[in-house]
Amino acid sequence: MRLLALHPRVGVLSVASRGYAGQGMSGVYPQLAVEGSFVAPEEIDASGLDVAFVAYGHGESAATVEALLEAGVGMVVDLSADFRLPDAAMYGEWYGEHPAPGLLKEARYGLPEVFPVDSESRIVANPGCYPTAAILALAPVVRRVGGIRSITVNALSGVSGAGARPSVKTHFVSVNESAAAYGAPRHRHTPEIETMLGRVGEVPAVTFVPHLIPITRGELETIVVDLDDVPAVEDVLGWYAEDYAGSTFVEARKEYPHIAHVANTNRCRLSVAVDERAGKLLLFSALDNLLKGASGAAVQNMNLALGDPEDMGLEHLK
Amino acid sequence: MRLLALHPRVGVLSVASRGYAGQGMSGVYPQLAVEGSFVAPEEIDASGLDVAFVAYGHGESAATVEALLEAGVGMVVDLSADFRLPDAAMYGEWYGEHPAPGLLKEARYGLPEVFPVDSESRIVANPGCYPTAAILALAPVVRRVGGIRSITVNALSGVSGAGARPSVKTHFVSVNESAAAYGAPRHRHTPEIETMLGRVGEVPAVTFVPHLIPITRGELETIVVDLDDVPAVEDVLGWYAEDYAGSTFVEARKEYPHIAHVANTNRCRLSVAVDERAGKLLLFSALDNLLKGASGAAVQNMNLALGDPEDMGLEHLK
Amino acid sequence: MRLLALHPRVGVLSVASRGYAGQGMSGVYPQLAVEGSFVAPEEIDASGLDVAFVAYGHGESAATVEALLEAGVGMVVDLSADFRLPDAAMYGEWYGEHPAPGLLKEARYGLPEVFPVDSESRIVANPGCYPTAAILALAPVVRRVGGIRSITVNALSGVSGAGARPSVKTHFVSVNESAAAYGAPRHRHTPEIETMLGRVGEVPAVTFVPHLIPITRGELETIVVDLDDVPAVEDVLGWYAEDYAGSTFVEARKEYPHIAHVANTNRCRLSVAVDERAGKLLLFSALDNLLKGASGAAVQNMNLALGDPEDMGLEHLK
Amino acid sequence: MRLLALHPRVGVLSVASRGYAGQGMSGVYPQLAVEGSFVAPEEIDASGLDVAFVAYGHGESAATVEALLEAGVGMVVDLSADFRLPDAAMYGEWYGEHPAPGLLKEARYGLPEVFPVDSESRIVANPGCYPTAAILALAPVVRRVGGIRSITVNALSGVSGAGARPSVKTHFVSVNESAAAYGAPRHRHTPEIETMLGRVGEVPAVTFVPHLIPITRGELETIVVDLDDVPAVEDVLGWYAEDYAGSTFVEARKEYPHIAHVANTNRCRLSVAVDERAGKLLLFSALDNLLKGASGAAVQNMNLALGDPEDMGLEHLK
Repeated sequence: MRLLALHPRVGVLSVASRGYAGQGMSGVYPQLAVEGSFVAPEEIDASGLDVAFVAYGHGESAATVEALLEAGVGMVVDLSADFRLPDAAMYGEWYGEHPAPGLLKEARYGLPEVFPVDSESRIVANPGCYPTAAILALAPVVRRVGGIRSITVNALSGVSGAGARPSVKTHFVSVNESAAAYGAPRHRHTPEIETMLGRVGEVPAVTFVPHLIPITRGELETIVVDLDDVPAVEDVLGWYAEDYAGSTFVEARKEYPHIAHVANTNRCRLSVAVDERAGKLLLFSALDNLLKGASGAAVQNMNLALGDPEDMGLEHLK
Repeated sequence: MRLLALHPRVGVLSVASRGYAGQGMSGVYPQLAVEGSFVAPEEIDASGLDVAFVAYGHGESAATVEALLEAGVGMVVDLSADFRLPDAAMYGEWYGEHPAPGLLKEARYGLPEVFPVDSESRIVANPGCYPTAAILALAPVVRRVGGIRSITVNALSGVSGAGARPSVKTHFVSVNESAAAYGAPRHRHTPEIETMLGRVGEVPAVTFVPHLIPITRGELETIVVDLDDVPAVEDVLGWYAEDYAGSTFVEARKEYPHIAHVANTNRCRLSVAVDERAGKLLLFSALDNLLKGASGAAVQNMNLALGDPEDMGLEHLK
Repeated sequence: MRLLALHPRVGVLSVASRGYAGQGMSGVYPQLAVEGSFVAPEEIDASGLDVAFVAYGHGESAATVEALLEAGVGMVVDLSADFRLPDAAMYGEWYGEHPAPGLLKEARYGLPEVFPVDSESRIVANPGCYPTAAILALAPVVRRVGGIRSITVNALSGVSGAGARPSVKTHFVSVNESAAAYGAPRHRHTPEIETMLGRVGEVPAVTFVPHLIPITRGELETIVVDLDDVPAVEDVLGWYAEDYAGSTFVEARKEYPHIAHVANTNRCRLSVAVDERAGKLLLFSALDNLLKGASGAAVQNMNLALGDPEDMGLEHLK
Repeated sequence: MRLLALHPRVGVLSVASRGYAGQGMSGVYPQLAVEGSFVAPEEIDASGLDVAFVAYGHGESAATVEALLEAGVGMVVDLSADFRLPDAAMYGEWYGEHPAPGLLKEARYGLPEVFPVDSESRIVANPGCYPTAAILALAPVVRRVGGIRSITVNALSGVSGAGARPSVKTHFVSVNESAAAYGAPRHRHTPEIETMLGRVGEVPAVTFVPHLIPITRGELETIVVDLDDVPAVEDVLGWYAEDYAGSTFVEARKEYPHIAHVANTNRCRLSVAVDERAGKLLLFSALDNLLKGASGAAVQNMNLALGDPEDMGLEHLK
């Protein structure tokens, strides 16, 4: 809401909510100074919309996407997992039965720096936050290097990644002064990482272990790659420089990224190390799960689909 | 200081400090209600001491340990790294020239649940916090399983592990709402982990990647083991139950440990998972770096060396 | 549970729970290493109990207290607000109709250092956390000084004071990196502070403004007293020294107390300043809301009622 | 730096630093993506500057301001305390001897919503963060109401307000899970609050008690006003609506402000309550100490002095 309210290409902004219809947006979210009220989903006149963003949970999203397209929306950016996996079978294995398998072939996975969408895209699947960080770090390596025996993605995430619903797990006293792994060894972002990396090269099954840490926003992945010929740090930094040369938001540095370097921005920061004793490549990737890992990427996707520069409306998040 | 002041076997407690000599202990540390004042190191009459604890930095500690022993102290528990590695060559590779190589043969590495000391021990090397968590999780596996191809220890640590000295790195604003890897790929706790595991079985070079997270105390390690025949979760839990059957402080559970489950205690909590898709064993290990990872272990070591139960004076930290 | 499990006078410890009956205590609370399982309330054989602690919410507690006494429990320490106020009328004004007004005359308000209970006490009303901090700071002043025109208690509290129930207000993302006043200008601890101070001297209506801050445990009150003749800092420190001379847990210092100085202890730390320009007395009071503000005080109360030293079983919390 | 780099009126941006001259800005501050390097102060060609911002400490700033003006800078926004107080005598009482008393008469105190500067201003004294929050809450009251007997400002501040220099006080372990008062009863922002409120009405000596809480940025003031005729909540909200009708950034609401509602924005949020039992008015004021309390206000001041809308370049911080 904040990003779209500031975006120069956004004319009329309607925000639908099942729970808050009729309430003022800045009353519900006092941290926002966005004017206007939430409307009920059925009040939206979809036929007049150029772009719609859908931010329901997985399984719930696809039906709304379908209805919006049928009503004449130009394109939909879907922030759920419903259109991220390539086929209904894989979706079924990780999420359950797909709610709209017929639409899958229309969906484009939109990770701007690796898989940019264009004006042909009617459904853009906005990537998961963890896969975004992992794919941005790994794609340049996987694209160039063979013989990868093993990939482990160890991730740290702020609590906003666990959703807004109150629960024992998100109670301040549960999270504060603590940290724990969760979701392993079968977190649902795993097949997304594997599938998308598989489009650029050969990868083994990925071990993905996310952890919750006591911060509000931001994500850091430490990725360990076991491979035959470990490349030099400078080589990998060079690959990053090459692949992300035209990118506004993705940058590699020698210094390891801190979450604070990317929080409240649309950046992803990468770094590299080599453990010569154990013969492993270490990659580091940090981003803000709410921006580059969700809404910032969604606006980038909209920009690309509309033929605009990827950073339009995001200049203050560089 | 807090633990020793409460310990039933401790008669006279003298606390030496180079910087605070003459000042009241609870004035310097208002969070402590320990009576008495710090004394200068040279005021300590070492000849009358049964036990001394030395908590200087590595390289500085050995000379004091030597002087204390020469003055007639019964035994020394050294909390630095000076006596943790088995020989001066390995020490030299990671820390620099060893300050008292002649004493190394007298030192015993004191990790109570795996390498317990006894009344013969004159110098007890108190383990590093990271190695404690790693060895407690890995030793039962390494002892029983061959063909380990790769071990990666991914660690999260609270800021008390980074020392009390103010710096940009420990400034609240640097640490809060952030997280980052540091020290990798050559953190000094690596050879300690490898050497001690090597005493119970065969291990490859260990990849160790510590991260700083915004909590005061506590540590969590997520350990990924790549091996030929991945054991079942129940098997590993059974090995833990067997090896730590008589232990007061080490326990494995099915549930993954949270740092909050062990903070402010002398416990280490372990857990296990298997990533069947990638064929890897995952181990989880959590402890309080200031207690089980430092001072609590030091008191356990004193207890064992004096022939007392390992939990004497530590009952409130179970 | 933790305190009682360690307490030398506690023989059989039965812990009743409506929600967790049958479950292991350390399974429900993995941060505890207390053995045994919760039992259903009706399984408790109250006739055999010397002491019972009731920790229900206000309004719910009184009926259980009544039933326990009728069943033959020797004494009850009630941690709710049900027996803190002196009469049903005042209770009605702040909490609603009193559930057992006939029992009020049997209740003793148990703030050990100001209003100690004794072996005659059958119902001990354990004080609120905010009133404990306020009364400990104010009683020595109110006892000696007249002409107090105004008292403002500005309080900061950790989130454990807001209860364990998940809600938007206690969600990590709501609390973290924030702070806000709540409950003012009519927080229910106000009449408790006024009434109990009224037993030692004359006080005006108290303005009480609590704030939630992003910490787990601990409370700090900054109290501004407007009065005719502002006493000197040294005088007030002297009054504290005098009134708390025999106290294990309450101490005044020149240095302002930090919450970290008392967290995880049963202490209350006090301090004093005088704003000479504005002619006001400032008092500072810090404690751990879960210990000195709740369970630690409850154990002190039990100790006193049983004729034991107030710090029995609490030595490690000094 | 971040605000000015994005500001549409800023052409050439030179950032001088005594410590970092020659280093890249985004290397020193990896959380910034601002291009270019720091220059040494003496490399700045002041004669070509329309506006300069000086962010030295108090006592150090005035000489630089003087030198810049002599070199021909159009106007200087000074973020130190050197030009906030009206005369050298008052400055001397709180800060020490004034370094450039002759310049004081040229300085304008620039709190945009209460004391806006204009194109005549050559030196703009940017207000302190605490006074900004206090004056925005109090000025509309003081302007309309007489008989104020007492004002107490109880403030909570994030650690960024304590400066970037590492110290025991700003070490993560000192601040985290704690809170404490500091600087009372004679904090240097007190005379600034009193003097500026004195320009709109009659005020007594102000009691100001700041506290440090474990957050990075943001400030909350709870202000207790003791006066003869306590106005109604609706009246005060009406005064705020009236006085801040044209304001982009200052807004009053019935709901108490949370620091999270204003963090990372240039807003100040106000609220009001009345303690009818004690006869006191309570005001609440929250802002981000680094933006509305410092750099955001500085840009507002620049905008006003250049005849631009106050929110130019600050639209994303509404």
